[in-house]
Amino acid sequence: VSQLAIGVDIGGTNMRAALVDPDGAVVSHARRRVELGGSAARCAAEIVELAQIVAADVGLTAIGGIGVGIPGWTNRLSGELVLAPKFSRLNSRELCDGLREKLPCPVYFDSDPHMATLGELWVGAGRNADNFVMITLGTGIGCGIVIGGQLYTGHHGFAPEFGHMIVGEASEIPCACGVPGCLESLASGPAIGHAGQQAAREGRGQLLVEWSGGNAEAISAETVVACARNGDPTALVILQRAGRLIGAACANVVSLLEPERVVVGGGLSDLGELLLGPIRETMQRQSYLIAQGYACPELVKAQLGDRAGVVGAARLAYNHMD
Amino acid sequence: VSQLAIGVDIGGTNMRAALVDPDGAVVSHARRRVELGGSAARCAAEIVELAQIVAADVGLTAIGGIGVGIPGWTNRLSGELVLAPKFSRLNSRELCDGLREKLPCPVYFDSDPHMATLGELWVGAGRNADNFVMITLGTGIGCGIVIGGQLYTGHHGFAPEFGHMIVGEASEIPCACGVPGCLESLASGPAIGHAGQQAAREGRGQLLVEWSGGNAEAISAETVVACARNGDPTALVILQRAGRLIGAACANVVSLLEPERVVVGGGLSDLGELLLGPIRETMQRQSYLIAQGYACPELVKAQLGDRAGVVGAARLAYNHMD
Repeated sequence: VSQLAIGVDIGGTNMRAALVDPDGAVVSHARRRVELGGSAARCAAEIVELAQIVAADVGLTAIGGIGVGIPGWTNRLSGELVLAPKFSRLNSRELCDGLREKLPCPVYFDSDPHMATLGELWVGAGRNADNFVMITLGTGIGCGIVIGGQLYTGHHGFAPEFGHMIVGEASEIPCACGVPGCLESLASGPAIGHAGQQAAREGRGQLLVEWSGGNAEAISAETVVACARNGDPTALVILQRAGRLIGAACANVVSLLEPERVVVGGGLSDLGELLLGPIRETMQRQSYLIAQGYACPELVKAQLGDRAGVVGAARLAYNHMD
Repeated sequence: VSQLAIGVDIGGTNMRAALVDPDGAVVSHARRRVELGGSAARCAAEIVELAQIVAADVGLTAIGGIGVGIPGWTNRLSGELVLAPKFSRLNSRELCDGLREKLPCPVYFDSDPHMATLGELWVGAGRNADNFVMITLGTGIGCGIVIGGQLYTGHHGFAPEFGHMIVGEASEIPCACGVPGCLESLASGPAIGHAGQQAAREGRGQLLVEWSGGNAEAISAETVVACARNGDPTALVILQRAGRLIGAACANVVSLLEPERVVVGGGLSDLGELLLGPIRETMQRQSYLIAQGYACPELVKAQLGDRAGVVGAARLAYNHMD
């Protein structure tokens, strides 16, 4: 290809864009806060601005395609964008049309965890793997499945929904999706924050209580993580429980798919072994194939950090440009 | 192809063979009881005898290949046969070599649930589906996954192990695999029989108590099924609970793979809506994608009955003969 691709990632908090070369290297990068209440026209305008910023040195005419990771899905059968419930105020058709009008090159859309997985497959922890599962741990719990070196996204393109698997423990807070007991309601960032708040309210966890300054509501997942890193045993137990539940879901994934590798990304993966340890331990203990010694997929940390989404979105564009 | 294929299915109870024409029709069929304690040489000799019986009209020289469904797996990477723990007395290399020596045509092996899935894909309930999941309910709980019109069997060929997923309820009897809480230990044929025995011992379920004739140990899954069909409420509750647990595992599969279709086969599927009803109801209620109205994979009964395995095994042979 003689032209370059831009990847855009509309996350829950930030919107990012990157100019990515054909080898997967990020040439330039920009980001801004997402305005969740904004209109589709405003969102499209912001994406165009970011694209112009990252393409400043080469000009938009050098861009052959733009991939956009969205908080939702592309319906593989109808081509429609379907936004996740909390983004439903954003009209997906307007967003789609707005972008296609304002940009001089083709625009391709897909789900943000799919994009992160494509990024790790291309130049990250999934390189050279014929099949692997990627899990992104953050505000939500996302997932991508690679089979035969390709993204697998289900009949309509809505799979996988790793965060909505049920692994048995009762939920303390209802999942946003309405189904009780989803993994996301037990082990996502907000669920960890919620567990920290509850501990502080009950006077458990000295650091949690101190750091909340008498206001348990102020405790977030970040607070729990910081307290755990400073040795608060209650905060550590909260993270271990989240890890154990994520590990139970991973064991189910290993039973079903026997992947070559499980890649863990997303903001919470920065905790490293503090979280990956309990995930790996539970995955190995609860998986029949691993317990019997038949298979032992490695569990590794993602390599592209918060750039996986933009790199993968650029790869999506290159896939269409090739 | 000018030559024909034979499919063989070594199940937990019966060994079957069939001569199958290139359109998937069974031309002739034979079966006998499996001798679990027998040697590999004896098992190989029995398979050869069955093959000779079903090929009697055309002669073994007309056979271009024989597919054998085994209670275990073929390691995709090493080519080795790995037999399931309860068949481990049977030496897989001897079985393999014995058959290849005694038969005048190539022999191909794969896991029996994979074969049943291939059969349903070819001429059964999976026909024309680009992706579907098949579950076989019987002594064990087996599974096959079709993606892009092909069997997906994992990195080594050991997936899927649907029966070893953990959906949360505590197990009353330990799973044969050693991991506590596997679906198979809660909802397989033996687990249903065990629940029936326990009910009879505690004097619950009038028909169960009567039919056991004072010997609760005599109650099997078949007894529970017969009592349920005759309206015993305790037996019905046992089957509903099994269906609910299987449905919870199906919901996880829908979350992960969003298949076009879920096909339910195996001996227990003959119960029809008595079991499929609770499975479908739980699958729909616990699946985020279905609850939100994004996707609704149909749950249907397999079409080939106890011949799915031999038909699929013949398909495996045809795949190599083409």
